[in-house]
Amino acid sequence: MKTLKELADLIGGTVVGDGDAEIHRVAGIDSAKPGEITFLANPKYLPLLKTTQASAVMVTPGVEAPGVSLLVCPNPYLAFAKVLTALHVAKPEYRGIMEGAYVDPEAKIADGVTIHPGCVIGKNVSVGSGTTLYPGVLLYDNVTVGEDCLIHAGTVVREGCRLGNRVIVQPKAVIGSDGFGFAPDGSSYFKIPQVGIVVIEDDVEIGANSCLDRAALGETRIGRGTKIDNLVQIAHNVKIGADSIIVSQVGIAGSTEIGKHCTLGGQVGVAGHIKVGDNTMVGAQSGVTGNMPGGEVISGTPAIPHRDWLKAATSFSKLPEMRKEIKKLKKQVEELQELTKEG
Amino acid sequence: MKTLKELADLIGGTVVGDGDAEIHRVAGIDSAKPGEITFLANPKYLPLLKTTQASAVMVTPGVEAPGVSLLVCPNPYLAFAKVLTALHVAKPEYRGIMEGAYVDPEAKIADGVTIHPGCVIGKNVSVGSGTTLYPGVLLYDNVTVGEDCLIHAGTVVREGCRLGNRVIVQPKAVIGSDGFGFAPDGSSYFKIPQVGIVVIEDDVEIGANSCLDRAALGETRIGRGTKIDNLVQIAHNVKIGADSIIVSQVGIAGSTEIGKHCTLGGQVGVAGHIKVGDNTMVGAQSGVTGNMPGGEVISGTPAIPHRDWLKAATSFSKLPEMRKEIKKLKKQVEELQELTKEG
Amino acid sequence: MKTLKELADLIGGTVVGDGDAEIHRVAGIDSAKPGEITFLANPKYLPLLKTTQASAVMVTPGVEAPGVSLLVCPNPYLAFAKVLTALHVAKPEYRGIMEGAYVDPEAKIADGVTIHPGCVIGKNVSVGSGTTLYPGVLLYDNVTVGEDCLIHAGTVVREGCRLGNRVIVQPKAVIGSDGFGFAPDGSSYFKIPQVGIVVIEDDVEIGANSCLDRAALGETRIGRGTKIDNLVQIAHNVKIGADSIIVSQVGIAGSTEIGKHCTLGGQVGVAGHIKVGDNTMVGAQSGVTGNMPGGEVISGTPAIPHRDWLKAATSFSKLPEMRKEIKKLKKQVEELQELTKEG
Repeated sequence: MKTLKELADLIGGTVVGDGDAEIHRVAGIDSAKPGEITFLANPKYLPLLKTTQASAVMVTPGVEAPGVSLLVCPNPYLAFAKVLTALHVAKPEYRGIMEGAYVDPEAKIADGVTIHPGCVIGKNVSVGSGTTLYPGVLLYDNVTVGEDCLIHAGTVVREGCRLGNRVIVQPKAVIGSDGFGFAPDGSSYFKIPQVGIVVIEDDVEIGANSCLDRAALGETRIGRGTKIDNLVQIAHNVKIGADSIIVSQVGIAGSTEIGKHCTLGGQVGVAGHIKVGDNTMVGAQSGVTGNMPGGEVISGTPAIPHRDWLKAATSFSKLPEMRKEIKKLKKQVEELQELTKEG
Repeated sequence: MKTLKELADLIGGTVVGDGDAEIHRVAGIDSAKPGEITFLANPKYLPLLKTTQASAVMVTPGVEAPGVSLLVCPNPYLAFAKVLTALHVAKPEYRGIMEGAYVDPEAKIADGVTIHPGCVIGKNVSVGSGTTLYPGVLLYDNVTVGEDCLIHAGTVVREGCRLGNRVIVQPKAVIGSDGFGFAPDGSSYFKIPQVGIVVIEDDVEIGANSCLDRAALGETRIGRGTKIDNLVQIAHNVKIGADSIIVSQVGIAGSTEIGKHCTLGGQVGVAGHIKVGDNTMVGAQSGVTGNMPGGEVISGTPAIPHRDWLKAATSFSKLPEMRKEIKKLKKQVEELQELTKEG
Repeated sequence: MKTLKELADLIGGTVVGDGDAEIHRVAGIDSAKPGEITFLANPKYLPLLKTTQASAVMVTPGVEAPGVSLLVCPNPYLAFAKVLTALHVAKPEYRGIMEGAYVDPEAKIADGVTIHPGCVIGKNVSVGSGTTLYPGVLLYDNVTVGEDCLIHAGTVVREGCRLGNRVIVQPKAVIGSDGFGFAPDGSSYFKIPQVGIVVIEDDVEIGANSCLDRAALGETRIGRGTKIDNLVQIAHNVKIGADSIIVSQVGIAGSTEIGKHCTLGGQVGVAGHIKVGDNTMVGAQSGVTGNMPGGEVISGTPAIPHRDWLKAATSFSKLPEMRKEIKKLKKQVEELQELTKEG
């Protein structure tokens, strides 16, 4: 529980109304009850301010609502995230190395680390203080995990890969699987050993069942603060810059570089050996097949400027009609040609 | 083993031929041997009735086949499923809490539950009678699993999520991973805590390596009887109605509602915050970007009525030819314009 | 460490320069240092031969580079793979059945098998000599794994499935999950038991988090030497021939047959119950909806010859312009028709 004043201090906002109101939980604006705080980021929900039972509402400057306490702040969505964290998120309970965890005697486990049952920790693994390994986390030899990480159940990190500080991994992600590399050898394929690693920088989040392949040689690298959703494929030697957003089921082929502040929509595919510049936004299901300069919004396969794609996609269903029209025009022009000839 | 008469009683069918024939197994019509039963759902395989060595064949009324015992029923495909279940499916052997399973002392495990080695069961977890947890199932604190469920190896269910009765989960599904929500905070992103849960209603099946994200606030919910295939992504706060079919590699973005009796084909993407009405069928690889009223068959990206999409997709390869034709027409029309001017 | 002469013997190449040079590692041509070998497969990197610090470079016949030792061979990329294997890949350390592994007393484990902690091995499982099961591998009853396999952490193989020799499975693949089969039963669905198996032939590699469903009846089968990337979905009763390449996030629907030496690009979808002939190449993100004769390069949804697709895809963005042109032509032709009528 916190008072409205305390929450205002936390998020750098101003109270209009009862600063001593006790706030226990965050809730949606239509379901919130007394003791709860909610937020209004979209003007279309303004009428709900009159009927909400919430004890307080986070709003942008200028919103008025007689009878309701307001927490005024420039970015209510960000404030919502911060208040939610303050009221609802507890650090995982410290439990040490629990029974049923197998930790190699040569592993270096810092103080304050929790390792749940079913975890298997290899030789020379290093885990930083404050990190929690949920059940069934499997770390191969020589893996490094930084401080204050949350590694959820069933995650696998293969040999030699390195995770920074405050990294969050959702359940069952795979970090460091072999890249997909084979040299044709007559009619069969010869496996190219994948002897590089994966490096995950600080503050990265990786989604459930996502796969990050180790480099053939060198590194696959995910930049600081980048967030990767579920079921994403990152191939060997890919580099992603800082603060990029990779939505679910995206696939990025080998050796491609994605810049900073990029957003790849769901199910996007990116070809191998290309560069996608900073601040590129790619629409869902698109296929990026060549270098992109950065700063663009693109869509489609192959991806083109989003605005052009939207227009073309709208025209797509008119194709059969267009063919009929062209056929008719051809006939009409032929008739006109006949007529003029005759003339 | 069952007699043909017993199987007829089971599926509500009629025997034409030897009701005492002993049936041991189900097999395909071209490989079946004496002692085996097969089925004929597609008329194009009728000629095989003359050569099959099966002891009996499940057929629709009206099919005749001298010399072969028939099990006549309105829906041979459904009958096949029921006979297969009767002859081939045994309830998993009851083995109790096995050595190598870690069960928190505060978990409530009903009688008749089997928990294999490598399972880790958290605090206040509740597991209903008749449920089997295969090896390596990891249940976080406060998870509820109903009765007669089959939870296959390596499945993870995160804190507080609830599974109904007779739920089947294929290996390594993830239920309750964090939704993908981040508030922009200058150039970086601030994680929005995902404090809701996932609710799986009765008789749902979930495929291998599929991911169902917990809600930000409230619930992600999968309706009774809905079947989800492998590698499917269900984002936070998605609701799916009863008896829908979600084929492999589909992705459904946040807060979207899918109705009852819908079918989403393989690799379909559905945008966030939209409603797809009951009885909608979506063709494979389509992208659904707006609300759908229900009762339609749609395809393409953005999805349009399937019939229109088929015609447009067929015309797609004619695009270069169409461009040439338009160019030629323009030239011809210009010439005609010149001629008429001159005239 | 090996001498350059030893490596030449290994790959069937010729030394030009110092055959006694000691080679410790493989590196990229721009980062290689003394003691390291690199390779040149692409002529565009020829200038780097002058500046590389590598002790030797693998090149095709005809390349000259005064001052650098060369290892001349017909296929430097294949040679690179073989040298990398010789210098960097050690057989996993033999460790036997480790503490924390649960092996059913009725399992048949050959000599020389390593089973890490967290593995659970069911009844009548058979594991061939030289095979390594990394932590958390879960083998259901009656599974067979051949000799010299590497089964990475968290892989699940369900009951009765069979893996050949020298099979490599990346972390968390699922082999033998139930196929997705349900018979409509009024408004709900009745599960069709999936009583077949999966057979993986020799020298196959399977990617992280990929799913191979067991057959309804009979077998799902992956041919000798075929390589499957991460997050791939193989549905029930699919057959894939020898030496095919299935790139990440591909989905192949039920009962489809893929021939030998095929390549399916990333995110490709293949419909059910079709045949794709030998030596077919399918471009990334394509949808194959009908039988393919083999020997073709195809792309798009539905897939057409790649060359045609490329042309059509390039024209796609011109659709709005084409519509305008057609509209204009219609008007012009109408005017011409008026004129000629008047005339």
